[in-house]
Amino acid sequence: MKKIVEKILNSKKILIISHENPDGDAVGSTLGLYFGLKKLNKRVVPVLPNKVPQIYSFLEGAELIKTDFNPKDIDVAIILDCSDIGRVESLKKKLMKIPIKINIDHHPSNFSFGELNFIDPTSSSTSELVLKLLNELNVEVDKSIANPLYVGIMTDTGSFRFPNTTLKTFEAATYLVRHGAEASYLAKMVYNMKPLKALKILGRALEKLKKKDHLIYSVLLLSDFEEFDASEEDAEGAVEFLNKSREADVAVLLKERRKNYFKVSMRSKDSVDVKKIAMKFGGGGHINAAGFEIEGEPEEIIESIIKEIKVERSNRDN
Amino acid sequence: MKKIVEKILNSKKILIISHENPDGDAVGSTLGLYFGLKKLNKRVVPVLPNKVPQIYSFLEGAELIKTDFNPKDIDVAIILDCSDIGRVESLKKKLMKIPIKINIDHHPSNFSFGELNFIDPTSSSTSELVLKLLNELNVEVDKSIANPLYVGIMTDTGSFRFPNTTLKTFEAATYLVRHGAEASYLAKMVYNMKPLKALKILGRALEKLKKKDHLIYSVLLLSDFEEFDASEEDAEGAVEFLNKSREADVAVLLKERRKNYFKVSMRSKDSVDVKKIAMKFGGGGHINAAGFEIEGEPEEIIESIIKEIKVERSNRDN
Repeated sequence: MKKIVEKILNSKKILIISHENPDGDAVGSTLGLYFGLKKLNKRVVPVLPNKVPQIYSFLEGAELIKTDFNPKDIDVAIILDCSDIGRVESLKKKLMKIPIKINIDHHPSNFSFGELNFIDPTSSSTSELVLKLLNELNVEVDKSIANPLYVGIMTDTGSFRFPNTTLKTFEAATYLVRHGAEASYLAKMVYNMKPLKALKILGRALEKLKKKDHLIYSVLLLSDFEEFDASEEDAEGAVEFLNKSREADVAVLLKERRKNYFKVSMRSKDSVDVKKIAMKFGGGGHINAAGFEIEGEPEEIIESIIKEIKVERSNRDN
Repeated sequence: MKKIVEKILNSKKILIISHENPDGDAVGSTLGLYFGLKKLNKRVVPVLPNKVPQIYSFLEGAELIKTDFNPKDIDVAIILDCSDIGRVESLKKKLMKIPIKINIDHHPSNFSFGELNFIDPTSSSTSELVLKLLNELNVEVDKSIANPLYVGIMTDTGSFRFPNTTLKTFEAATYLVRHGAEASYLAKMVYNMKPLKALKILGRALEKLKKKDHLIYSVLLLSDFEEFDASEEDAEGAVEFLNKSREADVAVLLKERRKNYFKVSMRSKDSVDVKKIAMKFGGGGHINAAGFEIEGEPEEIIESIIKEIKVERSNRDN
């Protein structure tokens, strides 16, 4: 950490970058660090490989985030929330031209690809780590910093519900609220501003729920999306709701992308490592949240998942 | 507060009671205070007018809560989370026989009906106030106390999302987690253990969403409940999801109780006081959450609500 602090203090122009398909933590940690380093009078270039999702576009400074950058003159790149550098694939070549890369992340699978690394898998989010770094840098945290970092913590913990929620999480949240984070306003903007069609497509997924073995699942067909004029993005997060069921260990949502081709999202409570299952189908993810893509008939796909779970279980029991 | 502390310390046998149809805060504050006063070696009788809802029955000590009591020998009754004593209607007569009543509550409408009162409407929950009281009593907070109080705060703030979430809320939550509250386990038990039929009936409500004026609404008919073998209790909380819409200021859910007789639940974001609307139909509630019961055709009921909102708006604008 000391080396990272020194490097930042000695740099003039700093790139901040996070991963493709940015989530609340990617956007939040990028913006929080951006406003923090601005307080140190650094020249800062905030970048995300894709446009900031509409849901986070209300955050102060979201319009300043670029989708590309010129590596010239940049002394150091701070790469946030990326378990590997492949998460910024499209900008990787340019990134490699920057002399020093600082890697700040909370994913346990991060293999320290930076010249300097600050990895803490016991942290709820990268935003929590950025807060730590800013404190080390003696940056005075104000609302412009506290709000995005709070969003990062809030979204990565599912509003303080996921198992990554610890005492440290609450200490960080308390600190941020004390320094200007508007907790309930931010929750309203992120969680209570869904388009009608997103609620309808979630409703369709829930209404069609089925249970087989220890698995609960639902299938959203192209015809469902068409009926509500909804896109796959509108069904984002729907699988979290399937996981609210007490009757199942694993929740699976199939979203049809084109005829008989599905994006499969899986969530588990405790007992099943869905990442292992997803990897068997060429996908990946975390122990409790993973996914893959596959061609086939929905019921057959579900059957093959159940089969793999059984194999996985018997491997573990032996 | 000093008088309350003295009274408790000087009492031998203490009744703790909260309101009918107990929610997470009623159950949580009752259990937290129960285990707290036990640490002071008091004889404590915990009472709720109704059985502890299944969703909270996992909490340590839930099985100790009675639905009735004998007022004999009881020195003091502590009434929790009740804006008025009518909230314990069925046990009110017995309650009146107890010499001293201490009223602890966070509802702004509480009119200090106790001999001693500890009312703080800036508090997220009664559980937050019970924590304050236990600190004043120098009770050492452990897991048996921290867990139920955390559940009270978590449920009354909608997982730190509602406008009653403040710095004090996070300070209390941090304190509780530091003293043993198992945040993510408690969230899982309360939010992720829903029966399949509850998810399906929620799905039906979302799928049928309609928008009229600034109002979003859905109707659950008797036939919907029958189709999923679900009860009104299974649709509890569904109206909160309607309120996630960005396209509407007010969300309304009609649940058919018997042919053409509806329980109407309303939620609002900021601009409409739904309590005022509900009161026009003989109901009540809070500014952002209210309800009433009514006979009629769904579309007509919705029309009459829209009409009242318009009247309310024009009154305010004048």
